[in-house]
Amino acid sequence: MISDQNIQLDAAGRIIHFLSVEGLSAKTLVNILDHAETFTSVGDRTVKKVPLLRGKTVVNLFFEASTRTRTTFELAAKRLSADIMNINIDASATSKGESLADTLRTLESMQADMFVVRHQDSGAPAFIARQVASGVSVINAGDGRHAHPTQAMLDMFTIRRHKPNFGKLTVTIVGDIKHSRVARSEIHALKILGVPDIRVVAPKTLIPAEIERLGVSVYHDIKQGIRDADVVIMLRLQKERMSSALLPSGSEFFNTYGLTRKNLKFAKSDVIVMHPGPINRGVEIDSAVADSKQSLILEQVANGIAVRMAIMSLVVGNAAL
Amino acid sequence: MISDQNIQLDAAGRIIHFLSVEGLSAKTLVNILDHAETFTSVGDRTVKKVPLLRGKTVVNLFFEASTRTRTTFELAAKRLSADIMNINIDASATSKGESLADTLRTLESMQADMFVVRHQDSGAPAFIARQVASGVSVINAGDGRHAHPTQAMLDMFTIRRHKPNFGKLTVTIVGDIKHSRVARSEIHALKILGVPDIRVVAPKTLIPAEIERLGVSVYHDIKQGIRDADVVIMLRLQKERMSSALLPSGSEFFNTYGLTRKNLKFAKSDVIVMHPGPINRGVEIDSAVADSKQSLILEQVANGIAVRMAIMSLVVGNAAL
Amino acid sequence: MISDQNIQLDAAGRIIHFLSVEGLSAKTLVNILDHAETFTSVGDRTVKKVPLLRGKTVVNLFFEASTRTRTTFELAAKRLSADIMNINIDASATSKGESLADTLRTLESMQADMFVVRHQDSGAPAFIARQVASGVSVINAGDGRHAHPTQAMLDMFTIRRHKPNFGKLTVTIVGDIKHSRVARSEIHALKILGVPDIRVVAPKTLIPAEIERLGVSVYHDIKQGIRDADVVIMLRLQKERMSSALLPSGSEFFNTYGLTRKNLKFAKSDVIVMHPGPINRGVEIDSAVADSKQSLILEQVANGIAVRMAIMSLVVGNAAL
Repeated sequence: MISDQNIQLDAAGRIIHFLSVEGLSAKTLVNILDHAETFTSVGDRTVKKVPLLRGKTVVNLFFEASTRTRTTFELAAKRLSADIMNINIDASATSKGESLADTLRTLESMQADMFVVRHQDSGAPAFIARQVASGVSVINAGDGRHAHPTQAMLDMFTIRRHKPNFGKLTVTIVGDIKHSRVARSEIHALKILGVPDIRVVAPKTLIPAEIERLGVSVYHDIKQGIRDADVVIMLRLQKERMSSALLPSGSEFFNTYGLTRKNLKFAKSDVIVMHPGPINRGVEIDSAVADSKQSLILEQVANGIAVRMAIMSLVVGNAAL
Repeated sequence: MISDQNIQLDAAGRIIHFLSVEGLSAKTLVNILDHAETFTSVGDRTVKKVPLLRGKTVVNLFFEASTRTRTTFELAAKRLSADIMNINIDASATSKGESLADTLRTLESMQADMFVVRHQDSGAPAFIARQVASGVSVINAGDGRHAHPTQAMLDMFTIRRHKPNFGKLTVTIVGDIKHSRVARSEIHALKILGVPDIRVVAPKTLIPAEIERLGVSVYHDIKQGIRDADVVIMLRLQKERMSSALLPSGSEFFNTYGLTRKNLKFAKSDVIVMHPGPINRGVEIDSAVADSKQSLILEQVANGIAVRMAIMSLVVGNAAL
Repeated sequence: MISDQNIQLDAAGRIIHFLSVEGLSAKTLVNILDHAETFTSVGDRTVKKVPLLRGKTVVNLFFEASTRTRTTFELAAKRLSADIMNINIDASATSKGESLADTLRTLESMQADMFVVRHQDSGAPAFIARQVASGVSVINAGDGRHAHPTQAMLDMFTIRRHKPNFGKLTVTIVGDIKHSRVARSEIHALKILGVPDIRVVAPKTLIPAEIERLGVSVYHDIKQGIRDADVVIMLRLQKERMSSALLPSGSEFFNTYGLTRKNLKFAKSDVIVMHPGPINRGVEIDSAVADSKQSLILEQVANGIAVRMAIMSLVVGNAAL
């Protein structure tokens, strides 16, 4: 896989695709966060619309079902006044035997301005970004185990609103690190933004090899892992994986790695708790914690619209230059 | 189940959700009907749009498939210039194990202004209305056997256009009263609007216990039931139920309870015939009747858009106060 | 089947439905092509929208799945500023046992302005056009083996942009002529526009009886069929049919009827190659040809939006007169 940063920036270093936070500069990430601030108020207005993408065509190209992510992109596009089309590729062209490249060229010929791509294979959005014509942007809405960069950015945005000084934070990510594109993108984003203490907590079977290379510390005990943490990010446990040998049952996992009030006492008193959703209550997080004041889970959803509006309008604006 | 009227009105008695006609005042119902009159002309205009909900986000939250009802709400929302998103919950979050409450909170965090909810369980829209934040409205698009209040209101609207004096009417509802949320909502609406003579006609197995409490007379003979009626409302027979012991076959039902020209002669000469659709020709209604001048079945569909536009704009307007 | 031309024109000869190119005048077709020219630039604009159908309701009524065709109509409608609703009939009313006529009357009562209809049965769009009220237009998006007139028109448009003089052309259509509604519509369009030499190439089993009546010459040898051709149109081979006795396997077909660089040398040196898509590489067309400069496959897609915008705006404009 060619490194994403070569594709997602133009010659002047401006972001024209958003495929991965890896390789982006702190300045670029901060610019996205600042831009997103200007969109947070749109959702509170009587008329929740700005005309930035009026007359632009956005295609939600989902090779993997996801109501939540698709919906937030659809809503972000509509609030930017774009025309949006949802295309679920399973049910369509590929079943007729057309190649991904041909499907893409066809959609591109319809003069779409942006593809929001979710795919079960790592690298598919980057592959698509390499194919599209100049002026067309690609946003990665989650690819395989590789990256989920808009989720990472909305999480950075949420953290910054509560803990503005990244340079002083301890952030702990708990759960199935190995299979999580969210964790991977978050680690990169936290690193770029200068977070000095990034920790991951999981059983050995759910820690990827050589994870320390990314600059994180590994813990197998949740209490140790969240000790003095400013931010705890819980990952969703994929129930499909519980049936395999990799994972204990939901309740066993909860006993050892679930986030409870008791465990959370080891963190700083003003710790914030995040989760990309949807949450499994009683599996990775206790309801008492999920519904507490420290939990920012629903604020993350709201921020997700603003951050996606920011990213969509930035890449389209830059690609048109 | 907490009574719906407590939730659907604000402190000043204004309607902010529309969950059930039960418990609403005649004044509220008449206000909806009057408001709907102003929207009937929108469908005839060259530009079928008014900007009342511009920049508002409406979510069609359908836990039960229904093209017809979903489509009319979608169209009503678009003609009000709202942004609308269709979410079919079967295919999404619940399959990932998320609870209804969590799905809802997530959608609400996206700053939706209104949820249009259809659910197989009675009370689900009221449950949702109790959960949503102030300023967010819920409309019941049909829940279990409980209520289908927008259908009832479009039927009241259709009746009033042809028979303006509710206080003098005889209205007969024929069919599977027991399983029909449409019948239940219509009986409440007719009662509130002052219809003195409300009748239901069905075999004993399809009459719910204690139906007389609602103030209706029960008939098992269709000729007697529609004698001198001003309005005959036929219900759709659910074919799924015909295989059970509850119901005779379609043609047997038709012989006894089907609406034919012959039976209709017992009604007033200017009787109007209604049906919520889709109709089963030759099961509950004869084609000669369905396609006659007395049949208002298609007018009901057109009125459904205007009435839903009225309800949507009223609740959103009130919820924003 | 009543001939389509009687329905698709109003008393003054203006096109109010678009069901088939058969029976239309050269003047009408040229008018559509000229009108489409004015829309080609819309896709290149910053704001890809014109307000021609603002406030109009377009219903995509698809009884047969087709992401590609549905998407182009959806996009064309959105670029004309119409409100569009996608209705997949399989999943809805017909499963509840409603007749097509009743479904249609219901949709029509919602004051739709246009139905874009794809159906597995030949004649279904014409049936629908006969049912709808005055002022409502029907566009055939493909019906059975009968016609796919918007595809034919976008192909005529693509040809004219490269070979403006229809009166001097040799056009060869290669593939499963027998089952192809595209081929049938193209032959009619080419004939009406005055193309003197129209050829079809296929094995005997894939040539319909009495095809010569349409004024085409039949070839069973691809080299002879494309000799000195100005335009070669390849049809998509339906893989479903390969398993039957009608067709050899994909690779056998390719050996005899596939379009390769070698075969293409028999055509004129400036031949253009077209295909309605999606293409089966290595079945009906070689990748070297599909991706060559002579191939207009992707231009066809872009032209499809402009041509559909032209047809949609023409019929709605005429129907409103």
